[in-house]
Amino acid sequence: MSNSLFAARGDHDAIENGTALMPRFDADGLIVAIATDATDGEVLMVAYMDAEALARTIETGEAWFYSRSRRRLWKKGEESGNVLAVSDIRIDCDQDAVVLKVTLGGDGVACHQGYRSCFYRSVPIGTAPDAELSLEPDTAMKRVKRAER
Amino acid sequence: MSNSLFAARGDHDAIENGTALMPRFDADGLIVAIATDATDGEVLMVAYMDAEALARTIETGEAWFYSRSRRRLWKKGEESGNVLAVSDIRIDCDQDAVVLKVTLGGDGVACHQGYRSCFYRSVPIGTAPDAELSLEPDTAMKRVKRAER
Repeated sequence: MSNSLFAARGDHDAIENGTALMPRFDADGLIVAIATDATDGEVLMVAYMDAEALARTIETGEAWFYSRSRRRLWKKGEESGNVLAVSDIRIDCDQDAVVLKVTLGGDGVACHQGYRSCFYRSVPIGTAPDAELSLEPDTAMKRVKRAER
Repeated sequence: MSNSLFAARGDHDAIENGTALMPRFDADGLIVAIATDATDGEVLMVAYMDAEALARTIETGEAWFYSRSRRRLWKKGEESGNVLAVSDIRIDCDQDAVVLKVTLGGDGVACHQGYRSCFYRSVPIGTAPDAELSLEPDTAMKRVKRAER
């Protein structure tokens, strides 16, 4: 499916101030998509969409992505049950990123590692990084289930 | 500055379950970075970091990025005054995306278009998209100042 699902890219003003959806897909045909929890804004996961994944998400209100590793379209939760019900889709100023506000289905796990969010580790701030830097697990974020591969 | 600021990429388990920071930079040497407001979780902007921008952000607690259009390192707010004070840096399971929790300085505007957030337009959900789709401005998000170029 091509990019003809959307308006052609317009000029700077049309892209940034207009009301036409003119997403910019990168050289691989992808746009970055950030899923945030509709209840508290927590970032759950970051993934990529091709034109068809974006179109299906808009049409169905459930999140579809394009897997760069498996090289195929996938509906989030198609195997795990952790479907993302999308209540809002936002696009940014230059239309090369989308934010989804979602309600996480199933057992409330967005990450294949079994956590609610993929962002279960923090980077300590205040010292120049080197190979000895140690990430800090978010101990408040419990592993709900075993990791998938 | 090279990627030697960080540990070399390890195996799948080390990347996803370990405590070493092993960021994956893409073919252009960049990693996607999402800035969210520390107070309410709202996604303010999405940008990219090279290894040096990530290292400076970790060391200084202020957000640095790499501008793909200007092809240079930039400190967010260096001209506008809208510095991002970073209170938390999270990295995701496969270490190819970071989330920053930030306090937005200056006049509280993250977007060069003069809005608090770059995500000031919504995509309507429920109908297959076509070139006639009309984005819905977030009327609650006021334009605080004029757009920069």
